[in-house]
Amino acid sequence: MDATKGKVDQGMQNPGGQMDKPVGYHFMESMLPKVVKRRVHALKRLQVQCANIEAKFYEEVHELERKYAALYQPLFEKRRDIVTGTVEPTDEECEWHSDREEEEELAEEIKEKAVIEDSKKEEATPQEDAKGIPEFWLTIFKSVDMLSDMLQEHDEPILKHLKDIQVKFSEPGQPMSFTLEFHFEPNGYFNNAVLTKVYKMKSEPDASDPFSFEGPEIIDCEGCQIDWHKGKDVTVKTIKKKQKHKGRGTVRTITKQVPNDSFFNFFNPVKVSPDGEMDEDSEFTLATDFEIGHFFRERIVPRAVLYFTGEALEDDESEQDEEGDDDDDEGDFDPKKEQPQPAECKQQ
Amino acid sequence: MDATKGKVDQGMQNPGGQMDKPVGYHFMESMLPKVVKRRVHALKRLQVQCANIEAKFYEEVHELERKYAALYQPLFEKRRDIVTGTVEPTDEECEWHSDREEEEELAEEIKEKAVIEDSKKEEATPQEDAKGIPEFWLTIFKSVDMLSDMLQEHDEPILKHLKDIQVKFSEPGQPMSFTLEFHFEPNGYFNNAVLTKVYKMKSEPDASDPFSFEGPEIIDCEGCQIDWHKGKDVTVKTIKKKQKHKGRGTVRTITKQVPNDSFFNFFNPVKVSPDGEMDEDSEFTLATDFEIGHFFRERIVPRAVLYFTGEALEDDESEQDEEGDDDDDEGDFDPKKEQPQPAECKQQ
Repeated sequence: MDATKGKVDQGMQNPGGQMDKPVGYHFMESMLPKVVKRRVHALKRLQVQCANIEAKFYEEVHELERKYAALYQPLFEKRRDIVTGTVEPTDEECEWHSDREEEEELAEEIKEKAVIEDSKKEEATPQEDAKGIPEFWLTIFKSVDMLSDMLQEHDEPILKHLKDIQVKFSEPGQPMSFTLEFHFEPNGYFNNAVLTKVYKMKSEPDASDPFSFEGPEIIDCEGCQIDWHKGKDVTVKTIKKKQKHKGRGTVRTITKQVPNDSFFNFFNPVKVSPDGEMDEDSEFTLATDFEIGHFFRERIVPRAVLYFTGEALEDDESEQDEEGDDDDDEGDFDPKKEQPQPAECKQQ
Repeated sequence: MDATKGKVDQGMQNPGGQMDKPVGYHFMESMLPKVVKRRVHALKRLQVQCANIEAKFYEEVHELERKYAALYQPLFEKRRDIVTGTVEPTDEECEWHSDREEEEELAEEIKEKAVIEDSKKEEATPQEDAKGIPEFWLTIFKSVDMLSDMLQEHDEPILKHLKDIQVKFSEPGQPMSFTLEFHFEPNGYFNNAVLTKVYKMKSEPDASDPFSFEGPEIIDCEGCQIDWHKGKDVTVKTIKKKQKHKGRGTVRTITKQVPNDSFFNFFNPVKVSPDGEMDEDSEFTLATDFEIGHFFRERIVPRAVLYFTGEALEDDESEQDEEGDDDDDEGDFDPKKEQPQPAECKQQ
């Protein structure tokens, strides 16, 4: 983009002059005859009207999503009950076409030796009496890079108590938002049964830049207070510091609490500055947070089991491979991920 | 993806063995205790149900798109009338906030010299009596790399006669598809007033691979017969070839028609093989064609003026820049382009 802009500016300073080595074809609106330029402006006004219609479209898509959230709900509850071991699925509910195929293939491939190993392993496994699917969500956190980047060793025992993640949409008529709910079983770390993160969205074109509108975008988020048990807060660490008295020269040791890396900082996000002025680090942190929130909503929660087994990861990676071939100017245009896009992540 | 698969296979062949340098965390479904594995299968069955619900969601999104197409229609007709010069917009319709700003900035920047140049240019411009917006669509074809890649010099005079591009959606109850209509004014090249390209879509999960479902995908397309005037068909060229008679040694010159590069080959696409077997070249050509069809539908037609002025190109490019920073495993995950995605491009 910068390159293009540079070219256009250059052209404007030398109207009619030859641009050196133009990369592709660059048209200059400013060079149009006045009568044509005013017609182009008329088209731009029409385009603003289109953006306003588009905003209504995305509101309706949001309503559709609310409607469908209710249809998914019973399936997600069933999932939670199986994950936590509250419900044991029937044999019929567990029938999976690949069961036999997989076993046959495996038997074929690894032959006797491996089979012996396998039976040994099974004997040695104490988890045959496991409840539900142990470490279901923790496994997902470890498998998905975007999440494992946040994950620290001290977070892992806590996340073993994570029972479910749910997405709740704002009610109609309310400002558009969605809430991620992290449901925990009683644990030795904090008292909250649910930790929440709310993502606020904006779904109308910006008056000052209507053409950048591409559907709802996340504009802010809010965490929650975690009611940690004494000494269990992993988001802080206590450091000891020796302090020398300037006058007397005596040394004393003080303890000090400092921030500590942890996934649970997710519930204490950077604040969006009301005047829009933020330093680059905070902006980056916030943009990443919005991406993660969006990823939970769009990918992890709707298809958790596929992240647990790794199937969804393979899809994500293969799409990345395909994109490698794409080197045109619209390089990032992935028709698989195009439209409508009711949840853009952008801080203001 | 291949790397991951390799890792998993390797792990399966050496159960319990250490994988060399594991890249990230890789969980192995096959290592789960049997009781847990069957619960995971229960979750997979629930996930298939989710995919089926999702398919219904996308059908409703398609209906919404049909509904909104009707709302955009009058604006697109107005656009066409302004582009072709059928209608001259009023002064009010042409008022654009940047008019004064732009002029002031320009005046500030380029000072007197350029202003003089500018007025010279205007004097010299014979286009002040231009009709509509000359070469509106051709300019877009030249500006967008995905289209300019197809464009040949001999296509340009023909595309000057392109009046409008429209998208028409399939009727409810019909198999899902959309049609691109290229409307031409009478011209010296072919008799058709409209050239069409139909993109057929599929909007249900594949029974053999339900988890890959991410919304409707383009599965096939169909062009149209162009009724070229004699000698005007730019998609073929006549070559002269000298042929030597083997026995007699005499030489004669024969003429032969061979395919010629042209945008108009877009209306004579590669056929999808019914048995799914296609060579790599044809697959690539078809995948590119689907991408272009999707791009016309989602970007060019809805926001043509922004591609004409270049504003949309800058957006596309700046998004590409942003993506450069993103190097996690879900590297291609762009929250701006995520969900719902009712038009995926994939051939079967």
